[in-house]
Parts: sequence; structure tokens; C-alpha cells
Amino acid sequence: MSPIRKFEKPLGMRDTFPKIFEKKEVVRQAGRDFLRLRGFDFIKTPTLEYYDTVGKASAIVESSLFKLVDSQGNTLVLRPDMTTPIARVATSKLLKEKIPLRLAYFANVFRAQETEGGRPAEFEQMGVEIIGDSSVYADAEILLTAIELLKALGVTQFKITIGHAGILKAILTQNVRTKEQFRELHKLLVHKNIVGFEEAIKKFDLPESNKETLIAFIEEAAELKSIAQLDKYLVEKDAFKYMERLQRILTISEVEEYIDFEFTLASHMNYYTGMLFEVFAIGTGFPLGNGGRYDGLLDEFGAQVGAIGFGMRVDHLLEVMPAIHEETTDVLVLFAQDDFPTALAQAAVLRKEGKRTTLQSIEGLENKEAFEQLFSEVVCIGQGGIVHD
Amino acid sequence: MSPIRKFEKPLGMRDTFPKIFEKKEVVRQAGRDFLRLRGFDFIKTPTLEYYDTVGKASAIVESSLFKLVDSQGNTLVLRPDMTTPIARVATSKLLKEKIPLRLAYFANVFRAQETEGGRPAEFEQMGVEIIGDSSVYADAEILLTAIELLKALGVTQFKITIGHAGILKAILTQNVRTKEQFRELHKLLVHKNIVGFEEAIKKFDLPESNKETLIAFIEEAAELKSIAQLDKYLVEKDAFKYMERLQRILTISEVEEYIDFEFTLASHMNYYTGMLFEVFAIGTGFPLGNGGRYDGLLDEFGAQVGAIGFGMRVDHLLEVMPAIHEETTDVLVLFAQDDFPTALAQAAVLRKEGKRTTLQSIEGLENKEAFEQLFSEVVCIGQGGIVHD
Repeated sequence: MSPIRKFEKPLGMRDTFPKIFEKKEVVRQAGRDFLRLRGFDFIKTPTLEYYDTVGKASAIVESSLFKLVDSQGNTLVLRPDMTTPIARVATSKLLKEKIPLRLAYFANVFRAQETEGGRPAEFEQMGVEIIGDSSVYADAEILLTAIELLKALGVTQFKITIGHAGILKAILTQNVRTKEQFRELHKLLVHKNIVGFEEAIKKFDLPESNKETLIAFIEEAAELKSIAQLDKYLVEKDAFKYMERLQRILTISEVEEYIDFEFTLASHMNYYTGMLFEVFAIGTGFPLGNGGRYDGLLDEFGAQVGAIGFGMRVDHLLEVMPAIHEETTDVLVLFAQDDFPTALAQAAVLRKEGKRTTLQSIEGLENKEAFEQLFSEVVCIGQGGIVHD
Repeated sequence: MSPIRKFEKPLGMRDTFPKIFEKKEVVRQAGRDFLRLRGFDFIKTPTLEYYDTVGKASAIVESSLFKLVDSQGNTLVLRPDMTTPIARVATSKLLKEKIPLRLAYFANVFRAQETEGGRPAEFEQMGVEIIGDSSVYADAEILLTAIELLKALGVTQFKITIGHAGILKAILTQNVRTKEQFRELHKLLVHKNIVGFEEAIKKFDLPESNKETLIAFIEEAAELKSIAQLDKYLVEKDAFKYMERLQRILTISEVEEYIDFEFTLASHMNYYTGMLFEVFAIGTGFPLGNGGRYDGLLDEFGAQVGAIGFGMRVDHLLEVMPAIHEETTDVLVLFAQDDFPTALAQAAVLRKEGKRTTLQSIEGLENKEAFEQLFSEVVCIGQGGIVHD
């Protein structure tokens, strides 16, 4: 066991200790109840998928994929997202039973990291997908579900930034000359590097009017209170109308306070085709989740249906959720050898009362005093009687 | 996407559809509540571990490990069991806080498969470990916890076969001449191949008295009602005394009906040192779980403490659990474009009443009639009124 020490874990891998585990369970339980009540069905997919199917379609950069080769020589990946596996499952089986599908999941996803101390290489996502509904009401349902879910978890200080992958793509495409220019500008927007974006436009070989349009777009997209102002670009009339309808529905639903439109919003997940969004916590700026419409992804699996979803980071939710003060009684029932029957009966009574009860022989303890300290109540059973400490 | 078709999953990998997911959730929830009430703390460990630490210590054959190489050239494994990662976590951190530790987990473990249609390559285990208690009461607690857990899940038709890795090892070692003979006999017992065991003994070059002892052991170990009868082997006096104490405790605890002793019981998990056991369902013969004492494994991680635990197969538990008849009202609220506000309000009311409610626009439906069939109640909201179908 030479270069790696006994206790080490691979880069970006974490253990979850009991206290954090319990907090995560609260999120899982609340999230599950909430989503089931709204008609979402939970599914699970395997940790490993074929690289040629899910790996390639997943839109995660190659260097972030954990890859391995199976005994038959096929390349496998640890799932880097859940949207692509769900697209696979939905098109292979579930869409035959129900359209639209409302699916939900809690799942770990994997992204290989290059340096220690940075991002986790495995993290838990809670998410939903509506598959087979192309109407704007599916977009609204996804956004409303995200908002209500956060509120159900006690998170109220958050904002959702909404953009549109199609509109952004059209505006960029119409005003650049090469794919390289498109890719560079898009990447700068993914990293929210607006200064870099403006500098790149200046150095590009483009007509002045195009440069002006792109600069104007950046400025107006960032200040937009209403998407109507974008009408002058006239690049995607249908998409604008769609977004106007979405805005009206969100207004009716009285969730405007949580919403900002921002048409420079770009995602590294290149399967998004329509509305897309990011959720972040006000104050900390923590990204809580993201989502969007990915009508094209299902195509890759042979189904011509619309699809939209979101995923939330469970670890980031824990950071912004209000503290849970749970009063737990942790009872220790200690017994000496001959008193096991009495102790067993006593523990059964306490557990029936709903008290968390640890049954422990004195014989098995190295340090009785230290162990007793960890409990809120200690019951010592010995010398034929029950003695409360 | 040539040799692999779009919908395929890697060998032995499975999707979990909503109905099975819900059944598994019932097991998880009941198991979690049950184990927490008994003082077990839940933890999670990463899916990937270093091969040099957890991979080598895990006692799973090399060919069953999913291995990959990380960006720094280290070999990683998908965890093949949970006992070894928990031993790593416990010795690196948790044992400093509490001795003995009572830990529990729900986790997927991974075993590479060579052929399709066989065993799953990823399956969920629910398990517990008591670390830092060498007393026989820890053995008893593990067995009682397994029994009570099964009963809490509604499983009553099961048996637990109890053996002892140390006693078996001693009897085999004393009566064979070479390591190869030991390994062959042990492997035959792991596969419960008693006929093969007897044939192997006959062909081995061994003194007749040794052959007779081994044959007699097989016959007596299989028929044992009481471990006292094994006294004549006198190979591990302390171990026999330990097992006699364990039997007395189990008798006091009134669980004898679930217990059989069987000293030929052998495990492919070679880290077991003391008592070990297997749980199977009566009738189907389904293996539900197994466990045992593995005092040596902690040594590898630098802690000289006793440890014992068990793991149950969640998929096999589902097969033998009584059917759960859950009466669920699945309400569909259908709405036309202009009636969204009314529909939203109506869905909120139904959800507040605890009714599982799907809110769906008619616009987003391809086949309204087929979709309606999937719900127990349909509320159509249109033309300004609420119409119950």
C-alpha cells in the first residue's frame, strides 16, 4: 500500500457522516413526498452506462467522464448526468405506457476532477423530467415545481434566471461568421464572462453592425424586465411568443418575485433547445440547480417528443436550508452479563415508546464513562434491578 | 452507435421502474426507522475507492471488480462491498468519537458479470456494522437485529444458518496437509458441495484417521442441534465456549425457531474470523443476506478492535415481502388554455387534501382518452367551470 495511504479516497470523493446523512434524508423525504403528490413517478437507472449511448449523448466534456472497459471490451461510463439515462429509459419503455411522462429521481452523478480540494467528483441530484409534452405549460410546470419544491424545503431566498437556448443560438449565429467564433462566444457566456465576451467581439473580424447588435444584445438581455423588448432582433418569432406566454403564466401563478429573464444565459449542457434556467441562492450565490427544454435529446433515442426537466444539487440545498432542530432522546441501556434478559425487555419497552435506544453490554465497552457521555439518558441494568443514572 | 444499440445497458445493469421503486422505498423507510430506533447511525461512502486500499481488502475476486484508472494513474474500483469502506471510514475518523460504533447503510455494490441474464452487476444492500465490541453480545445483537428487521418488514418465513469461520478453519487445517487441499475443501463448502467435499477427501493423500474426522465433521455439523456435540474436536475451545454462550443468549431471546447451527458454513468473504451466518427464505430458498465477525479486517486499517455486521439484499427482500396494498387516489386535473388559473388553484386544493394530483394542459396531450385512463379520478376544467368526469 505504498503511494496511497490506507485511509485515502479517490480525488473528489467524500464520505457522508451521520449528521449530514440525516440532513440529506430530510431533503430526500420532503422532496419525495412533494414530487409524488404532484404526480411524478420515481425511477432509478444503473450507475454504469455504455459510453456509446449515454456517455456520448450526455453533453459532459470527455475529460470529466469516468470511463472503464468491461470484460467484453465495451467502454462504460459512470453516469455524468441523469437526463440522458432517463431519456434512454423513457424512449425504450415508459413512453409506450404514458405520454406525457412525469419522472423524478434522486441519484448520484459523477464528474472526474483534476485537482484535490475542489469540486466533488460524485454528488447527489434530485430532479424531474416531463417527457412528451411540448406545450408551454410543461415549461411552466417545471418552473413552478422548482419554486414550490424550494419553498417546501424552507428555502425562500432564491432567484431563477430564465433564458432560451434557441434564441441565444439564433442571435449568435446571425451575427458571427465562423463556428469557432460561435463556440468562443458561447463558452464565454457559459462562464458568465461578459467582459471577455465584449473583448472577443471587438477582436473578431465582423461587420460593425453585427458587433453593435451583439454588444446591444448583451446590455439589453442583462437588463430585461420583459422579454418583449427583445422583439427587435426578430430572429425567433415563435420562440419569443412562447416566452411571452410563459411569462404570462408565471405572472398569473404569482411567482414573478423569484424570476429574472436573462437571454445571455448559456449552458455547457448542449442538449438544451428551448427555455433554460438556473436557480441560485440569494446572498451566498450558491447554484442550487438548473434545467431546461431538450427536445432534441429524445430524437437521439428515436422519439420525436418534447421534454423538459431540472436537477437540484442536494449538497447545495443543505447549505441554504434552515437548520432543523430535532429533539432526539438517545437512550443507552447498559447491562452486565446476567442481566441481558431484563435489558432486552427494557430496550423493547423504550423502543415501543419511540425512544431511540442502544442496548450495550458493559463487557463490550472499553471506556464506559466516555460512551455514556454520548447519550441523553442512561439506564444501567445490574444486580437484578433497574438503576437510572 | 454500431455494435451497441441505443437502448442497451451494460451487462447485468438494470433500470428500476416506478412500481419497484416504491416497493424499495417501503423497505428503505421501514429499515431506516427500525435501525435508527436501535441506535444505528447511517453513513454513506463514495462509489469509487482506491483499489490498493478498499479493492484489495474487500475479499471479492479480482474478476468481479469494476476497475478504472483515474487521471493521476491510480487504479480505482466501484465498491464491491460496504464492509470494507466502512472499516476504512471507522478507523480513519469515527472510532475516535465513539466505541463501539453502530453504523448502518443503504448502498449499491458492484460485481462485474461475465454473462447476460444472470446476476445483477449492481445491487442494493441494507446493512449494519458494530465496530469496537468483541463481546458475544455484539454477535447476539447483530443476529437479533437481523431477525427483528425481517419481522418488521413482514418476512416471517426465514432461517438463519450460523457457523464459525475460526472453528471451520481449525478443523480443516488440522486434518489436511497442504494449502491447496485447504483451499479446495473450503471452496467446495462455500458452494455447499458436500458430495464434492467427500469425494475430494477420498482422493487426497491423507491419513485415514484424518479422512474419517473430516467426513464425521461434515455429517455431524449438518445435523447439529447443539454445538456442544462438537466438543470432541477440541480444536478451538474458546470458540466453542463463545458459541455456547451465543446459543444461550439466543435461547433467552426466544429466537431459536429462526436459527440453525451449521459448522460447515463457509463464505467467499475471507475476512470473516469468528461467527458467520447466512439468512435465507424458507420455501424459495432465496438468500436474503449474510454477515459475520471480521476482527482482522480492521487490523488492515490499523485498528485493533472487534467488528461484526450483516448485509441484506434489498431486491431479494422484495421477492419475499408480503404484497403492500396501497390505496392511492391519482387525480388528473385537465385544463384548456384560458383556465390555467382555475386549474392551478384546484390542484392546490386537492394536493392539500393529500391527493396525488397531476396538472395537465389539454394542449400538451397527444391522446387525451388514453391519458385519462391512467388516473382514478379526472377533473376537467374548461369553459369557465369545473366539470368532474
